[in-house]
Order: sequence, then C-alpha cells, then structure tokens
Amino acid sequence: MKISFQGEPGAYSEQAVFNYFGKDVETVPCESFDVMFDSVISGKSDMALAPIENSLAGSIHQNYDLLLRHHLHIVGEYFLRVRHCLIANHGVKKEEIKKAISHPQALGQCAAYLRNHGIKAEQVYDTAGSVKMLKESGANDVAAIASKRAAELYAMQILEEGIEDNAENYTRFLAVGREAIVPESDAKTSIVFSLKNVPGSLFKAMSVFALRDIDLTKIESRPLQGKPWEYLFYIDFIGSIHNETAQRALDHLGEYAVMLRVLGSYPRFKG
Amino acid sequence: MKISFQGEPGAYSEQAVFNYFGKDVETVPCESFDVMFDSVISGKSDMALAPIENSLAGSIHQNYDLLLRHHLHIVGEYFLRVRHCLIANHGVKKEEIKKAISHPQALGQCAAYLRNHGIKAEQVYDTAGSVKMLKESGANDVAAIASKRAAELYAMQILEEGIEDNAENYTRFLAVGREAIVPESDAKTSIVFSLKNVPGSLFKAMSVFALRDIDLTKIESRPLQGKPWEYLFYIDFIGSIHNETAQRALDHLGEYAVMLRVLGSYPRFKG
Repeated sequence: MKISFQGEPGAYSEQAVFNYFGKDVETVPCESFDVMFDSVISGKSDMALAPIENSLAGSIHQNYDLLLRHHLHIVGEYFLRVRHCLIANHGVKKEEIKKAISHPQALGQCAAYLRNHGIKAEQVYDTAGSVKMLKESGANDVAAIASKRAAELYAMQILEEGIEDNAENYTRFLAVGREAIVPESDAKTSIVFSLKNVPGSLFKAMSVFALRDIDLTKIESRPLQGKPWEYLFYIDFIGSIHNETAQRALDHLGEYAVMLRVLGSYPRFKG
Repeated sequence: MKISFQGEPGAYSEQAVFNYFGKDVETVPCESFDVMFDSVISGKSDMALAPIENSLAGSIHQNYDLLLRHHLHIVGEYFLRVRHCLIANHGVKKEEIKKAISHPQALGQCAAYLRNHGIKAEQVYDTAGSVKMLKESGANDVAAIASKRAAELYAMQILEEGIEDNAENYTRFLAVGREAIVPESDAKTSIVFSLKNVPGSLFKAMSVFALRDIDLTKIESRPLQGKPWEYLFYIDFIGSIHNETAQRALDHLGEYAVMLRVLGSYPRFKG
C-alpha cells in the first residue's frame, strides 16, 4: 500500500504514517498539501495522511480547504504525540550548541528550552530538512530540531529527546482515500456545510445535534470564497452516518443548510 | 497620536491606519504582531491596528491569541479593500516582466493573473519589503506586488492596479488601546470564553444569544493550551455591553463558562 504525506522523509507526518498504517507501507513524500491530495486523486498513492489540527497551534486550515475542494473521503484518524529531539552531528556535545535550526513551529514549541540553554533559533523550511542540512554542513555548534525518525534516517546523534516546552503536544491526522468506508462501531463523522446569512442560523444548525444528544468534538469556520464574512462550518461529531439518529440529524440540518457534505464516517482513534 | 502596525512602511496595514485614523497620525512600524501589542502596553504608541481576518484567507489566529494574552481593549474596527498593484522600476514595460516577488499570501491572491501573463512567482517576507528590494536591485524584468502606498513611498512605477484574482478581498482590522470605550450607538462586542468539556456546552453558550435575538457575526475557536482538544471560543455580536439585553446574555453565559472576558465594545464600521 502507498501512503502520501507532506514533507521530507523523516517528517513527523511520515512517522504518523508508519504508526497508523504499519511498518510495511510505502510512503510517498509530497512537497505540499496540494500535491499530497492530488497524488491520491491520480492514483499515484492509495491514501494520504493529512495533519488537520495540533493541540497547541490549532487547525491546519489549508487541509480543511483541500478536503472541500477534492472529493475524497475521510476513512480514519490518528493522534501523534509530537516529541521534538535535539539532533547534532556525531562527536558534538550539548554544551557546544550555539544555534538550533528547524521549522518555525518546532522552534516555537521549544522556545523556553532554547532560551534556558542560551541557544539561538534559526528558521528553515522543514524539520527533517534541517537534519539533512546539518549533516551536509558538518557544523559542530549547530543542532537541528526534528523527530527521532529523522535522526535515525540520517544516522545523526540525538543529544536530547522531548525538548518541547509543553508535553500536551499532539497532532491529529486524517486518513483520506478515494472510497468511503462503513465503520463498524464507535465512529466519528466529519461534515461541512454553509448556512443562510440570517441571525440565529448557526444556533439552529447546532440544535439538530443537541436535540438528539449527539456530541460535537470540533467546530471550525472557514471563509466562504467570494462572500465576505460568510462562512463554511466544519463539524466533527460522535457517531456514524449509518446510524439512524445521525442520519435524522443530517436530514434536519439539510433544512437550514445551503450546502451540506459528509466528508466521511470513520473509526475513532483509541490511544 | 502614535499608531502601531505590523510590517514595513508601505504595508497594507499602514494604509489601513491612515484610512481609519486620518493622515495626521504618526505610524509605528513593528516587526511582528508581538512587538505591535507590546508597543501599546509599554506606551511607545497609543493604539495598534491589528488585522484579524481576511475574507479569502480567513482568521489571523496569532492576533486572536495576543488579544487574550494582553489586557488591551478593542476600541474600533475597520475593513480595508485589498487592491494589489504590479509595481516595477521606472522605464520597465509590462511585457518585460518575467518574475513577481511578494509575500506568499499576495502571490497566492494574484495566482491566476500571474499564470495568464506567464510571470513566475517568488516569495519574499513582506509586500512593501518586496518593493524596497526591487528598487535596490534595479532589475528590469522583475515586478513587486504590493499596495499603491508602497509604490508611492518608494517612488516606483505602477504597471497595473487591482491585479487580485478575486475582488471580494477585504481585511478586517481591530483597533486596540489601553482604555476601554463606551460606544454611542450601533456597536459590536467581542468576547472570549471557555466551557466545561461536556456534550452540548457550545449549544448552550450560543443559546444565550439566540434566545435574546442577538446577532452573532463571527465565531472562532482556538486551542486551549495544555488541554488537548478543548477550545477557547471568540464570538463577535451586534450590540454593546452597556445595553441591558447584552449584559443579561453575558450574565447567562457566565453560568456555563469556565472563563469569560469582554475584549471590547466598539462602533461598527460603516463602509
């Protein structure tokens, strides 16, 4: 099975692919989220694993937009605990490190650690790419911040593991494929809809779930292109569209919605 | 009066400052949103004008986070129609342009225009900064994409105005200051709150507005730091907290909210 992810080999997303799909899949690195979605559409890969939200940084809105634009189906979810490693060339000691290079988000998530150790931060485009760059440069006063997998892939030294300032650092990924699935039990469903621009419309939309005791786990709004200050709403709820209560809720929502699409029902991830 | 904005002189944000506060204010350019908020806290400037949402790209989440972190007050709002200009050195003709440089978001908003004219895109850190770079380089096959003001500031040639693919391109700005104001009439209010993590809690929170026919204009969720998959909600509604109905709605919301803060009541912008 071929699974697309965004980033270089050794990216956190690639780690997530192996954790979720197993060690035997073939990973397809993609330079952007667009390319990643296209690779599934074109059949270059079977599925993609797209990061949709980080527990510290928030939603990855580009992937919400791409879920809407492409007619793919969400078939699963996975939560990755993000553990940043301080990575250096062999023979380098931690005390020698003056500068750390990584993606801005990783640097931000280790800001207190870097400050406490007097290490300067410098942004590069990618976490795994920073390890590759460091290896090529051979520098002995620079460290990269990336995943354990990136260190292993480039046969580099891990000076310290888990240097993130906040341990509650998780990224939620969605597996997307060309065919919808029917989850067996304990499912989650993701939908997207737009509403008439009238007072109280979102309240009515949410009532279709509340009145049926359906638990919402996420609501996200995105701008409706060409209609300033009107929105698309993305909602995740517990349950499958193959369950009658959820189906009635969606029928009810259809009475208020201008547009409504089910992005997928899929098994809930259990840690 | 001194007003902070994020970016270089000639940035769209600086244009917004002059449109909203008048030509006579002194603008204080800030290298980041953090620095911009700090400049108001420290008294280096009287107010800041922070972009909070673009009608195409969506919310600027960092400024939502900064509104929460700093105890400043929203005192006004302004909507800027974003018109991108194709800017070149003097004597250069449009047909000679092979490459356009600008901030990634501006390039993205002119993607179809650039494609149709066979112009390659190259990312730089800032729109106004791209004009400055172009002037310094003297290149005659490169254009910058930036505001009319940036072209005027650096005495450069505007080859074409309004090259954005989608005309419905507006950015909403919030004016923030150290003192809250009491808007006279036709006000908007921004609040932020968190809820107990129980089913139906957001529905209840929204009912306090719906039951009183209070119109919500925006809802935004941001991750609650340290509590994965719990959220802060930012809501804008029509009305002032100095109005009794709104005050009762907030009292009612207080029954469900773990945290509730009013970010400000301020006059609605009229175009």
